[in-house]
Parts: sequence; structure tokens; C-alpha cells
Amino acid sequence: MIKTVEWVSEGVRMIDQLRLPVEEVYPVFRTCGEVAEAIRTMVVRGAPAIGVAAAMGIALGVKSAAGLDRKNSVAQFNTCCETLRTTRPTAVNLFWAIARMKKKFESLTSTPDGFDPREVAREMEKEALKIYEEDIACNKAMAEHGARLIPQDAAVLTHCNAGALATAGYYGTALGVIKAAHEQGKHISVWVDETRPYLQGARLTAWECEKEGIPHTLITDNMAGHFMKRGQVQCVVVGADRIAANGDTANKIGTYSLSVLAKEHHIPFFVVAPQSSIDPTLKSGEEIPIEERSSREVTHIRNVQIAPDGTRAAHPAFDVTPAQNIHNIITEHGILYKPFSESIAALFAE
Amino acid sequence: MIKTVEWVSEGVRMIDQLRLPVEEVYPVFRTCGEVAEAIRTMVVRGAPAIGVAAAMGIALGVKSAAGLDRKNSVAQFNTCCETLRTTRPTAVNLFWAIARMKKKFESLTSTPDGFDPREVAREMEKEALKIYEEDIACNKAMAEHGARLIPQDAAVLTHCNAGALATAGYYGTALGVIKAAHEQGKHISVWVDETRPYLQGARLTAWECEKEGIPHTLITDNMAGHFMKRGQVQCVVVGADRIAANGDTANKIGTYSLSVLAKEHHIPFFVVAPQSSIDPTLKSGEEIPIEERSSREVTHIRNVQIAPDGTRAAHPAFDVTPAQNIHNIITEHGILYKPFSESIAALFAE
Repeated sequence: MIKTVEWVSEGVRMIDQLRLPVEEVYPVFRTCGEVAEAIRTMVVRGAPAIGVAAAMGIALGVKSAAGLDRKNSVAQFNTCCETLRTTRPTAVNLFWAIARMKKKFESLTSTPDGFDPREVAREMEKEALKIYEEDIACNKAMAEHGARLIPQDAAVLTHCNAGALATAGYYGTALGVIKAAHEQGKHISVWVDETRPYLQGARLTAWECEKEGIPHTLITDNMAGHFMKRGQVQCVVVGADRIAANGDTANKIGTYSLSVLAKEHHIPFFVVAPQSSIDPTLKSGEEIPIEERSSREVTHIRNVQIAPDGTRAAHPAFDVTPAQNIHNIITEHGILYKPFSESIAALFAE
Repeated sequence: MIKTVEWVSEGVRMIDQLRLPVEEVYPVFRTCGEVAEAIRTMVVRGAPAIGVAAAMGIALGVKSAAGLDRKNSVAQFNTCCETLRTTRPTAVNLFWAIARMKKKFESLTSTPDGFDPREVAREMEKEALKIYEEDIACNKAMAEHGARLIPQDAAVLTHCNAGALATAGYYGTALGVIKAAHEQGKHISVWVDETRPYLQGARLTAWECEKEGIPHTLITDNMAGHFMKRGQVQCVVVGADRIAANGDTANKIGTYSLSVLAKEHHIPFFVVAPQSSIDPTLKSGEEIPIEERSSREVTHIRNVQIAPDGTRAAHPAFDVTPAQNIHNIITEHGILYKPFSESIAALFAE
């Protein structure tokens, strides 16, 4: 069982995803600021995992303020939320988790008789753990729903890492669906897109497939079309960083191109994400903010220079796949069908 | 002026493309076997450059046999051709150059009165230099023809390296067209696909654009669709390793995916290649042999491990773009229009 994020007595323990696959180490982050930095630098990444880590970061912040007076404990809470809010812009789970922790904090602190910061800290810790446990339960539910869509014999292509490492742990989102199909005895193999520039596929998804004993083949991102054309890909399954109300989906850069290639070859294209990755306040994908990361992550690979000195590089970390290129969106509540604007509205109306 | 391959008194001098862009060194390869090894290990790469290097390698082989008797000099020639023939399978220019040198050798050695191996060596050297000079002339002609197709203001996307480094030198094929448009005062910028796994875009095309002063932005291969969708790509220009009689084109892995993305976004897609890259003996792209290279070139980048130990990786070095995804093929004889089966047949009938 891969434990991506865990609450321990000293803080938040997370597998260092920057050091995988060569080293498997689990540093502990002891303050909200340390957790925020881990999110920013991608020690932890993946939309659901970022949400869980942020919730735990807030719980850490509130805990460290438990000895302060009420006013300062509220101030510390707000600083902590603000620090986390500015780490990464695209994955909505971050904002979702902050909003949920904020709501809880407000309900605990807006009592007419005042509040005990120690008691609030305990309750906030419980809320963070609830988010963690819900995420794992979500993963299992998504995996079960999604596995039904995977053919009995299938080479499944996935992009980036939407596995246990992208969530609180255990299953993951897209890779969870693949794992469940494999566990059900379906004859599954995985095409692992290496996923430049950060190589989450090569470093993380290949590592998870290896751990789970799922047959897999690593490819560079530009090989996907070639193998689709040869009939060697039966479906594409990816995660999501933010889904708009109409089903447009922001996910790791390269996902959009894959969706076009899948359409060209009549290959089903599935998105797997918890409801917390859906942002019903955005009408379409055009409104999703796309993070622009450092060009050095393109010009250098693990500190090895691959381009001439001073080369200008672009680095949008995500792109948007339009709803019409997606066959189904799989959430913990079941499989969403088109038109997604209706099925998403129904999901939020429940 | 970039000098990719040059005939010098000690042998064949080539820029070491494995060490670019960090180092610019020009080792000399003194025997046919050394030239063959340089082709195999991709010290020199790019279909036209491979053809020129092979011709010079043969000239070197014949030169070293000039002191032998006739029988042994013929044997040495044949060994030399065979060594070169097995270096790389996809680029047809290699076989084209070998065939041309063979024809010349046969015409020189099949005289009724026997032949002087020294005289044959001099003539073979002349033939290799002729191939070299023709390649440079071809590049200039292709650049002029192709530049007409490039809009006045254009962000041009290119894949791999089809520049001076992929040919005998100076212009190149696809990048030659871009350079000529830039020299004509058109407002050109280049999207440089990094081109995994070998990174010819990041290492070589970015280096050439820098040398020529053409504005360029490096992207990972999986970003191309994103920028096309945003309207930031006006055309795609690529080279070719082998073109079948119907216009189907084998080129660096990833080219096919780009052609599908270009089609989706109604962006013109041009192939630039000399006639020597066209193989009229193959009916369609399905008959083009696709080189499978080492999986280590995927799991490691410049010797840095990016995937878990023992990860299986696929590495088709090329893919095939169907003729219907190509707008025009630009050769030294002019622009070919659809149906390519007819325009290619007409070219070879001339």
C-alpha cells in the first residue's frame, strides 16, 4: 500500500515524489509553511493529494496556534490558508480543501461564548483526517465504477500520474481504475506516457505499476499516436486537475493532444476524478487558470542541461480538454454521461 | 555556416551531434568503419547527412584499398558498403547513397582492360564530393521553393532537427525553409519541439536557431496541441526519412501525432525533403521499415535514470504520416501537390 500523505504525531509525512523512483524516502513536514513549500515544489502533487496535504497543513497551523489567544489563533489560521492558497493555481482541490477547512474553522470559532483554541485544533485535525479518509473511500468507489468501462483485454494508455501518489494513497484516480480492472482478472497492460517535462509517468506511474505487478511499457509522449494508429491502444484513462461545469477538463499538459489523437482513432477517452475536482462555478474550460511553471524545468532534466544556454522555453503545466473529446467522467458517485453540463448539475443538486 | 560533414585530407570531419549543444567539437573519422559507427551512434543523423556521410565513408574505404590488387580492392569496397548498409534502416538516403556509389564503382571497375585502384579511389572521392555539393544545392533550392508557402507573419512549428545538422550543411531541409523565410524579411518565430527521446529539437534545432538569430521557443512535444488550439501555430514544417510512392512519410517519432493535431486545427503541414528521400519502390508507408532503438534511450536522458530499474520501454525511432495529412511535399525540384502518387511519379519520370 502506497502511503502518499499521512498525519503523524510530528506533522505530515509524505513520500518525496521528487526523489522517486531512485529513492523512496518519507520526510515529515512539521509546519503549515513546510507543507505549502512541499506543494509548491511538487514533493507532493496530484490534485486530490494536494487537497489532502493542504487540509493537513491547515490542521498543523491551527495546532501550532493552540497556545495563543483567540484573536492570534484566528490570525494564524488566516495566514496559513493564504500561504497555501498561493502555492499552485490550477488544481481546484486545493481551494476546495481550504474552503472546507475554513467553513469548519468558522463553525467552531463563531460560537457566542468564544472558543478554546486547543479544542478547535483537535476538531480541525479530525476534519483533515476526515478529508483524508474520504479521499481514500472516493478512490475505491471511482476504481469500482470505472473498471466496468475497461474492456476484458485492454492496453490502457495513461498520462502523468493519477495513481496512489496523486491522492491520499491506495488506489488513485485514473490508475485506480486500471488497478481495479487488473485485480478483477481482466487482461490489462498499461502504456505509460513519460509526461514531460516533469516525467511523472516515467518516475511515478511506472513505479506504481511495478509495485502493483501490472504489465506496463514506458513511452515518450510523442509515441502515443503511433501506437494508437497501430491498434495497440484500447482506451485512454486520465485524471483531472479541474473540471468546469460543462465537463471541460484541465489536466497535465499533453492531455488535450491525447484526446485529439484518441478521437482520430475512435478510442474511448475517460477522465477519472472525485467530485472535489469539479468546479461548478466555472462555465467552461476557458475560465480555468493555467499555471505557467519555470522554463528551467524544460531546458534541464534533473539538472542536466538539454538545450543551449539561455534558450527560451514555454512551460504551461496544464492544458484543457474540451468536453466533446471526453467519453465519460468517472466520479465516486458513478459514471457521468453526456451532456456533462446536465450530469454535473445533477451531481451538485444531490 | 554550420559544417555538418566535410571531406578533409585525413578523413571525414563531422560535428559531434551527441555533444551539442554543450560542446561544439569536430572529430575526424578516418575509416569507413569509423564513419559507420558514427552513423549508428548518431554522431551524425538526419537522412540527407547520413547519405553524404555514407558516400564519404565509401570513398574512404576505397582510398584505403588503393594499394591493394584489383580483387582485394573490390572486396574491400563490398565490405565497406555492407558495413554502412546495416547501420540504420529507415532513412532511405543511406541506401540511395550506397547505390549511387556502387553504380559509380561498377562503371569504373568494369572496363575490359581492368582498372587502376588509385584512379578509382580518386574518382570515388569526386563522386562523394559531388553528392555533398548536390545536397547543399538541393537545400538552397528547397529553401527557396518552400519559403513561398510560409505566411508573412508566422509561428512555425518544427519537430526533430531538419536543419543544417541533418544535411551536408548550410540550410537544411525543413529548417532551411524557415531560415529562407526569415532571411526574406518575413516575421518568423519557431516553436521547437524538444523531440524525445533523443532531444534533437532541444539540442540541435534550438542551437541552429540561436546561431541564425531566428526567434524561437522550446516546448515539450506534448505542448504542441495546446498552442495550436490557442491559434499560436500558423504552420508545421518537418523533414522526412523516407517518403513512399504515395506520399506517406516516415519521419522522427512524434511527426504523425503532429500531423493529426495540425489537421484538427486546420493548420498546413509541410514535408521538406530532397528527391533522394523518396523511395518510389515502396507503394505506401506501411512498407517502410521502422527502426526500433534501445529502450535505454527512453529510460535514461543523457545517462540520468528517469524510470525505475528494469522498466520496459518502447522506442520506435520513426512513425509514418499518411499522405492525406500532408499539404505539400517540397523537394529541390519544386512543390509537390496532391495526389502525391501522381506528382511523385511525374518527378521520377523527368
